[in-house]
Amino acid sequence: MKKLLNAPCDYADQTLDGLCLAHPEFYARGGASGRVIHRPGGAIAGKVGVVSGGGSGHLPVFTGYCGEGLLDACAIGNVFAGPSVADCIGAMKLADGGAGVLRLYGNYGGDRMNFDMAGEMLELEGLTSTTVLVADDVASAGPEEAAKRRGVAGMVYAFKIAGAKAAAGASLAEVTAAAQKAADACRSIGVALTACTVPEAGRPTFDLAADEIEMGMGIHGEPGLWRGRMKSADEVAGEMLDRLLADRPLVRGDRISLMVNSLGATPHEELYIKKPA
Amino acid sequence: MKKLLNAPCDYADQTLDGLCLAHPEFYARGGASGRVIHRPGGAIAGKVGVVSGGGSGHLPVFTGYCGEGLLDACAIGNVFAGPSVADCIGAMKLADGGAGVLRLYGNYGGDRMNFDMAGEMLELEGLTSTTVLVADDVASAGPEEAAKRRGVAGMVYAFKIAGAKAAAGASLAEVTAAAQKAADACRSIGVALTACTVPEAGRPTFDLAADEIEMGMGIHGEPGLWRGRMKSADEVAGEMLDRLLADRPLVRGDRISLMVNSLGATPHEELYIKKPA
Repeated sequence: MKKLLNAPCDYADQTLDGLCLAHPEFYARGGASGRVIHRPGGAIAGKVGVVSGGGSGHLPVFTGYCGEGLLDACAIGNVFAGPSVADCIGAMKLADGGAGVLRLYGNYGGDRMNFDMAGEMLELEGLTSTTVLVADDVASAGPEEAAKRRGVAGMVYAFKIAGAKAAAGASLAEVTAAAQKAADACRSIGVALTACTVPEAGRPTFDLAADEIEMGMGIHGEPGLWRGRMKSADEVAGEMLDRLLADRPLVRGDRISLMVNSLGATPHEELYIKKPA
Repeated sequence: MKKLLNAPCDYADQTLDGLCLAHPEFYARGGASGRVIHRPGGAIAGKVGVVSGGGSGHLPVFTGYCGEGLLDACAIGNVFAGPSVADCIGAMKLADGGAGVLRLYGNYGGDRMNFDMAGEMLELEGLTSTTVLVADDVASAGPEEAAKRRGVAGMVYAFKIAGAKAAAGASLAEVTAAAQKAADACRSIGVALTACTVPEAGRPTFDLAADEIEMGMGIHGEPGLWRGRMKSADEVAGEMLDRLLADRPLVRGDRISLMVNSLGATPHEELYIKKPA
């Protein structure tokens, strides 16, 4: 396994240590296990808290988006594994300024189960919370099963919009509605060129031949729509755009925001490639 | 070659097109060939211009650092190839606000030759310019041959410091002195885990076995100090730090700035790994 790490089992904690040491103005560790990252200033009295969480291995998602006008706290699991119930509770407590807490995260089974349990347990302690799931990946289920879709890059928009709404003094119901509207408006699709390696597994999650790509693959290696020969950037982008627009048609005059991102191993220049019109 | 691109020969131009289209508030294309990226506002009258340049393939270096209080213009070559004399001239003209221009770039033969020729030709037209070379890579030559060292990440500090000095209204001599002081203060070292592929070549620049790394390799694949078995992050970072400190010893009370960066294909989390003290 060719990765810069010490012991695989220490990977997640050592990245969080380094992150907080490098940027103490933005991030602090909390929770009983240290697997909660939160703004160092703590909860803001009277402000709705916004929390997220999920597995390690996705930086800058999730912890990178803790900050002013963004998330108050994140619960972090091992690489590609959901956070524990205790850490979900820890994140919610660290975000609780007395005006309720929005749980805003990607639509993955483990994350849902643990965040739901955390919400129920804190409800008993009098902390009111709501949930908005981001489910933007059009490749992961058809429109008739949109609620089954995975949450991917759309999370970034939902984080920013919910965080800004909360910072502006909105109520929990208003922040929840804004986050839901943002989540509902997002569509995403991915394409895989090579596999990633989960440190504790020590080998690539799947195999893709040297001349193969997989359209629509999920960010943890979930199966995509087709696997086939490498295509040009223009062909790849064209198919991705067609699939997004088929799911959410646009009409002249619509205003959209476009994000092109990698998962950390595609050079910036490839993301900017633009074929002349 | 598993890269998101159209035709290899179009790679550099299409990345610059996309960059300017995505961020028109920061970047515009100029020069006869379009291979000059400059701030869209143009030269600022009375301000010292700061230009850089080099090959494509290094984004955010160089073009990413055009901006207010940063570079005024960059001349860009093909992947890992220096910019043309004409584009060096184009960049200097686009940066010329009448107070002279600093040529600030990494210490590579092709870049030097063409920027020097550009400087001489513009001198005949009455444009005064100076040169500061960044030569921070301690692995590329010993201290007795420090002037032969390659310029790598130290460029970012030199860009920022020279750009800020120029924005503050300093003279060409003052901006040049500040840039030289910044360049002289920087030390860097790299480690290679895998090879990169230059699009026009279509295959990896070199081979590294699945369990091998190369300490001190240059950013274009220039030979490093040793090649051997993969080590832990702590061992790799320890050796890199030892080599930097041997070249530029620190004493208690010194204040330094530390940058840990990848060249675009190492996940952020690996860069943040920190072993407990």
